[in-house]
Amino acid sequence: MSKPLEPILFSTCEAGLSKNNAGNSCVDFSVAVVLPAGGSGERTGLQTPKQFCTFLNRPLLSYTVQAFERVPWIESIAVVVSKENLGLMMDIIQKFHHRKVKVVHGGSTRHRSIFNGIQALCEGKDGSAVNKPKVVIIHDAVRPFVEEDFLLKIAMAAKEQGAAGAIRPLVSTVIATTPDGYLDHSLKRAKYRASEMPQGFLYDVIYQAYQRCSQSDFEFGTECLDLALQYCGTNAKLIEGPPTLWKVTYKRDLAAAESIIKDSLSQSACVITGESTQARDMAKTLQKIVGALEMQVDVIPDLLGDNARSMAKQWNFIQISVNNFFLSEVEEIIRALEERNQALLYPVVIIWVHLNVSEGLSNSKNMEEPEGMMEFGRGAKLRNILLYGIQLHHSKEVNHWEQLVGRMAEIICALIQDRNPALTGQLLKV
Amino acid sequence: MSKPLEPILFSTCEAGLSKNNAGNSCVDFSVAVVLPAGGSGERTGLQTPKQFCTFLNRPLLSYTVQAFERVPWIESIAVVVSKENLGLMMDIIQKFHHRKVKVVHGGSTRHRSIFNGIQALCEGKDGSAVNKPKVVIIHDAVRPFVEEDFLLKIAMAAKEQGAAGAIRPLVSTVIATTPDGYLDHSLKRAKYRASEMPQGFLYDVIYQAYQRCSQSDFEFGTECLDLALQYCGTNAKLIEGPPTLWKVTYKRDLAAAESIIKDSLSQSACVITGESTQARDMAKTLQKIVGALEMQVDVIPDLLGDNARSMAKQWNFIQISVNNFFLSEVEEIIRALEERNQALLYPVVIIWVHLNVSEGLSNSKNMEEPEGMMEFGRGAKLRNILLYGIQLHHSKEVNHWEQLVGRMAEIICALIQDRNPALTGQLLKV
Repeated sequence: MSKPLEPILFSTCEAGLSKNNAGNSCVDFSVAVVLPAGGSGERTGLQTPKQFCTFLNRPLLSYTVQAFERVPWIESIAVVVSKENLGLMMDIIQKFHHRKVKVVHGGSTRHRSIFNGIQALCEGKDGSAVNKPKVVIIHDAVRPFVEEDFLLKIAMAAKEQGAAGAIRPLVSTVIATTPDGYLDHSLKRAKYRASEMPQGFLYDVIYQAYQRCSQSDFEFGTECLDLALQYCGTNAKLIEGPPTLWKVTYKRDLAAAESIIKDSLSQSACVITGESTQARDMAKTLQKIVGALEMQVDVIPDLLGDNARSMAKQWNFIQISVNNFFLSEVEEIIRALEERNQALLYPVVIIWVHLNVSEGLSNSKNMEEPEGMMEFGRGAKLRNILLYGIQLHHSKEVNHWEQLVGRMAEIICALIQDRNPALTGQLLKV
Repeated sequence: MSKPLEPILFSTCEAGLSKNNAGNSCVDFSVAVVLPAGGSGERTGLQTPKQFCTFLNRPLLSYTVQAFERVPWIESIAVVVSKENLGLMMDIIQKFHHRKVKVVHGGSTRHRSIFNGIQALCEGKDGSAVNKPKVVIIHDAVRPFVEEDFLLKIAMAAKEQGAAGAIRPLVSTVIATTPDGYLDHSLKRAKYRASEMPQGFLYDVIYQAYQRCSQSDFEFGTECLDLALQYCGTNAKLIEGPPTLWKVTYKRDLAAAESIIKDSLSQSACVITGESTQARDMAKTLQKIVGALEMQVDVIPDLLGDNARSMAKQWNFIQISVNNFFLSEVEEIIRALEERNQALLYPVVIIWVHLNVSEGLSNSKNMEEPEGMMEFGRGAKLRNILLYGIQLHHSKEVNHWEQLVGRMAEIICALIQDRNPALTGQLLKV
């Protein structure tokens, strides 16, 4: 994406890449989740229901599941899918190692599906009864950016008040229409809110509400908070949620979700220099330039000992190799990534910078290329690791050298931000 | 963007790249537009108000202005901006050759700004009175994807009924809250709609409404349809608009808007082959492969005569050069684009495919590179033309050759879709 005039910041943890353990201490009761994912996506003319649409090699639904799995105090997640998508769901669970998911058959309407999910939370794998959770959180499969701190608020309020729901200010004026399509009146915006997800309930409240409600509720209703009010007399506590709770509805929302994830993955990079002075100097210059573009850069000499630990937080690696045509250092990074299964959920970028400091070759035109870069890149791509190369000649002229590193920084930022699989294995020039 | 499981189509003309002249025959009255663009973007923590945020080298506001300028029956557009942004607005008009815009000083609230715009429509450049338009369309600067056919509906209904407005179904349930933040009741979704933009009015109706309304309306009101009802007794006709009328509100919406434009720009490409048989064969294979990826490809031998005309509809050019290390053919395309000022509104992509068919060189490793590709790319970029190179060797082995062209097609599609300015001047390998 070309840069807007001024950067508009995403919350750093919007994509769920940060950790926050605030909830561990206060949630001393059991919490489970129901994720209805049976929608057909017909609103947008999707062929694939939107929860199964893929970006960065992963279906939207998996991002949402992961948003709950990473919360330590959430015990299980009932994902309710239609019969046709059962196999697809099992594949997703296996491929992305989801551990807390229980797959449940959907009903013919949203409320029937949610009730199926709620009932399934009391059933063991063999059909035997298990302890019901204290609180149930209901969410949408197509709202992947829900965060722990907000879930905590909902869970706590649900436990204390019986029911709780996310709200947002109205984006547009809401108007009542006459039967023949004219303006009747408009509502005062300040008095109303949009009801969003997640919502939380005491298990007994939502279970009872579903047991007592009518077939017409099951058939035409959509709002769980309504059922709790109507059939259990529970007025839900309403909590204003962040704008990231928005629902992925249209194709443009998929592009938006992808851009949020990509921005989150592009906030920092790790530069590995080896022992060469030129490489270390270059890393420092790069650090300065890229830092100004709001990407934080860690510089380490190798992946040994403590340095290996700093790998764990990184989605982007820049290996500087001096006068070295071989990809052994890149192979080492890939090996370390594979050992940690680090590219399981997000594609990891490795940029191999080939710095030529030999005398006598003054331009990049005649520079030799490393063997098998393209094949190597194709192999890595299969493992969700995106490898790109950049080749440049060292210049002893300070201004020229800074210009070169500046151009390289621009290319590095673009490669990291875009994560384009079609360009892996390419060796770019500066 | 990595491909979703199934493509989710945007409307082909969502980005306003198509033409539709249906309105010319039925709009026999004068129509002008007021575009309030004074917002500060505070809702999203933007530094720059969002209407001035840039993607693909152009501010959002210019896309919206263009959406109206391309409609032949719209006569003038009053863009209302705050004092601080007057200079910025004048720069935009000059840079993107906007011809119908009249810049108006904003007021302290939305309604005051709109009224300023309405009054300005009756003033000539020298302050003299000019004929007022019959109908005024009011729109938001941050809804760039409004299309002629919908504007036509609004204009016609406004002329006949006095007022008309776009509506959309409610995305979320609307709820009323108690003063202490609990659910009071939820509204029946079917009876309500979200009021969106554009809205249209007889000039006299909206002018009178503003003349009669109170200072409190000016201060706190937001809904023009309300004023027309309250002060002129005009019930607006409500017309359901397409989902693309959505308002660019958050940073993610900028990413979404950019993806809509990029998709629209990537629907077709023009391949220029010269006279070489190999180039023409390759173009045909490419056409077949890329066609399956839903990009239409026109193949022409050169830019002479009738072929030049087919250039006008294209945003993407693929020049195949056989055994030719020089960029003269690319220079010719750039010259032709410059003559037509074709890269004024959207960046144009040129991919130079260097096909090597000489005997004896069996792999690309030792292939010579063209002179000055990088510098040439940098020069073109300044003129909003993005040049990329792809180099490959012809193979006489049919399967191998098809595999090579397949890989090239993947790279071509990615380059066209991404329009990444950081990668211009690069020579990629297949």
